[in-house]
Amino acid sequence: MALSDTLAPRRAALDATHDPALRSWVPGADAHADFPIQNLPFGTFTPAGEEAARGGVAIGDSILDLAAARRAGLFSGAAERAAEAASGGNLNPFLALGAAPRRALRARLSEILAAGSADRHKAEPCLHPAADCSLHLPARIGDYTDFYVGIHHATHVGRVFRPDNPLLPNYKYVPIGYHGRASSVRVSGTDLRRPWGQLKAAGADAPRFAPCERLDYELELGIWIGPGNALGEPVPVAEAAEHVAGYCLLNDWSARDIQAWEYQPLGPFLAKNFGSTVSAWVVTPEALAPFRIPQPARPEGDPAPLPYLLDAADQREGAFDLQLEALILTPAMRQQGLAPHRLALSSTRHMYWTVAQMVAHHTSNGCDLNPGDLLGSGTLSAPEAGGFGSLLETTRGGQDPVALPSGETRRFLEDGDEVILRARATRPGAAPIGFGECRARILPAA
Amino acid sequence: MALSDTLAPRRAALDATHDPALRSWVPGADAHADFPIQNLPFGTFTPAGEEAARGGVAIGDSILDLAAARRAGLFSGAAERAAEAASGGNLNPFLALGAAPRRALRARLSEILAAGSADRHKAEPCLHPAADCSLHLPARIGDYTDFYVGIHHATHVGRVFRPDNPLLPNYKYVPIGYHGRASSVRVSGTDLRRPWGQLKAAGADAPRFAPCERLDYELELGIWIGPGNALGEPVPVAEAAEHVAGYCLLNDWSARDIQAWEYQPLGPFLAKNFGSTVSAWVVTPEALAPFRIPQPARPEGDPAPLPYLLDAADQREGAFDLQLEALILTPAMRQQGLAPHRLALSSTRHMYWTVAQMVAHHTSNGCDLNPGDLLGSGTLSAPEAGGFGSLLETTRGGQDPVALPSGETRRFLEDGDEVILRARATRPGAAPIGFGECRARILPAA
Repeated sequence: MALSDTLAPRRAALDATHDPALRSWVPGADAHADFPIQNLPFGTFTPAGEEAARGGVAIGDSILDLAAARRAGLFSGAAERAAEAASGGNLNPFLALGAAPRRALRARLSEILAAGSADRHKAEPCLHPAADCSLHLPARIGDYTDFYVGIHHATHVGRVFRPDNPLLPNYKYVPIGYHGRASSVRVSGTDLRRPWGQLKAAGADAPRFAPCERLDYELELGIWIGPGNALGEPVPVAEAAEHVAGYCLLNDWSARDIQAWEYQPLGPFLAKNFGSTVSAWVVTPEALAPFRIPQPARPEGDPAPLPYLLDAADQREGAFDLQLEALILTPAMRQQGLAPHRLALSSTRHMYWTVAQMVAHHTSNGCDLNPGDLLGSGTLSAPEAGGFGSLLETTRGGQDPVALPSGETRRFLEDGDEVILRARATRPGAAPIGFGECRARILPAA
Repeated sequence: MALSDTLAPRRAALDATHDPALRSWVPGADAHADFPIQNLPFGTFTPAGEEAARGGVAIGDSILDLAAARRAGLFSGAAERAAEAASGGNLNPFLALGAAPRRALRARLSEILAAGSADRHKAEPCLHPAADCSLHLPARIGDYTDFYVGIHHATHVGRVFRPDNPLLPNYKYVPIGYHGRASSVRVSGTDLRRPWGQLKAAGADAPRFAPCERLDYELELGIWIGPGNALGEPVPVAEAAEHVAGYCLLNDWSARDIQAWEYQPLGPFLAKNFGSTVSAWVVTPEALAPFRIPQPARPEGDPAPLPYLLDAADQREGAFDLQLEALILTPAMRQQGLAPHRLALSSTRHMYWTVAQMVAHHTSNGCDLNPGDLLGSGTLSAPEAGGFGSLLETTRGGQDPVALPSGETRRFLEDGDEVILRARATRPGAAPIGFGECRARILPAA
């Protein structure tokens, strides 16, 4: 394949499943869709009228039921073993398998779903219209870690406190991260209750306990961990990519007023753990292979990463070119029939550290990662206005309200507002893919 | 019972199981033991020569196998249902049950194990010598949250940075906490590998990646969560005690050099997540009922807790009087046949917030807690020397080495050192109980 020859990546090998000319017989699997045949993301779902959650693959406007496809005899060998692991109520056993079985299943799914496939008659009864299915969190999340690798976000936030020196001295040495709350991660489509918390006004003597008044979103890339490592056995950066099973969108909802008062000295806690939202589909490293790019060059004067974070292949192809978008839909906009309004257009190019560096750093002290663990990139803001991944940045902490097409303005999120995150990977010579939406609506405080 | 009449607590009701005159027929269940018949803590274990983990109850020098006791027909009704939930490979189903079934099982176990019990012949074959069993983590931990409620520890640490104003302004309003790493919590007896990490010397231009040179322990109370709450539905402080299933000892190992460099702005991460150690036995709220005390009075001038953290019953009996001890045993001490040397003697009296306040605060924004979640109190130091729950405090950051009976000194922990935490509850008129040990030895960096 010409594309493969051009990129010649080491890990992110391109094969017949990436052929941009490939088409599927499934309706809706078009070139402009999130789920053409070149994507084939995994998730869990329940068809309308049924009860049991099961594993599936998104294709066009449909979901292929993997358990049904197995019963139809569509798989054998490594693909069958991977399909078995991916067909239950959560994908943890599948994530644990690692790359080779995942690739085998992808290759076979691509054959089955390709236009002209001899298996169409067997596969067609295994499809469900996606619109009629409920989607679930794809995995049981053991631990959730949120990083802070969006350097422009870190700079924008730091500027509020230290205008002349926004980034702390450790930022360019340490892939900064902290532990988030795994239990409150929910799948796209789940409403989010506005939290109560301790709020302390700038001039007030004491805090009061009240509903959050500065509710914000954060536009992040989510990373699903694959095989993982035993406690005490770090993952070298050169092997780190093997432990990533896939990607999603992540909205790290943030209560800015709670955060400002509580976060010293141990970091964010109740300002973040009332809920996080992820998109439902696990987009595989294989699907993203055509969109790999070299790690963007560090600005002149930045230190080189310490050796434990440095790998030539990771430098060459460890980053992504993935467009990220955040949109808002207010109740008034809904009433007026308006489309969601774009708050930000950003990119995974703005990650100062690669995912492999995040994994290597996380395990460098021996900390274990396990199948189904979730990592967040941290907010990925572009350097310029129009690309800020949070309202904190967009409205400069509420000072400059955003104007919406409904005639409204927003400093922070209001009840009934819906935030929608989207992702799109495009590249000349590759079939574009998307992630599906990550959306949730704000319910009033209890 | 006289004791019950004296204390008249609301939740912490005393009954026949607390009678200090009660004795067991099981050897080693003496008044000076950790596990007399008044304790009856739950855990999971595997007997020598067997493979399957199962639930048990510590009594004297033995462990009662709950599954075997069920097969022997020792339980019925609510006690049987609780025993069933507690007899598997982890206690999560049992923790989820809440107080009433737990109390029923405790009452029945007390009957079975009491001297003169007619059930002795049935129960005796269900006992295993504890010394021949391996103990496991009692529950699958969903999320682990570490608090910072030891006010003397917070003051000692804060004094390093702000000599005149050691406590931050939020400390007396907010039960400060942060999310820890659940996956790396291990049961007592599991060795701990010294972590590598980024260390930056005070005068150095850049950090280097090397084994931790300032490895420390932290003496904490651990709290096992029971039923828990649904996302978006806070637990009121008056109901919070119902969601606590038990207690343990917790050593929150800390790499002080990694921590100093990494922790801004998002809090501790790799400095803590390489391992935490808990004692194996879940000591129930019922066992601790005789040791309840009023929440210690706040110093003159401290603000009252906000209303969502204030409950009269919790103020009256929400604290504990539990003696906590940290000891060290070095390889040289072991060679010389010396006993472990006490580093600190402290108490749960030094908690500025009660466990109920921690639970109410944690869920006040809607965050969900789930059965088997673990909370840590944060380091519980006494105000005076001899009672500091970390070497950071005891040696003033390594400035004043501790002298050991072997002739050695310690600024921080060295390879081969073993840290042992113990707890003991005593009170006039009550049978004293202990927690069993929380111990682990430091392995050299990999």
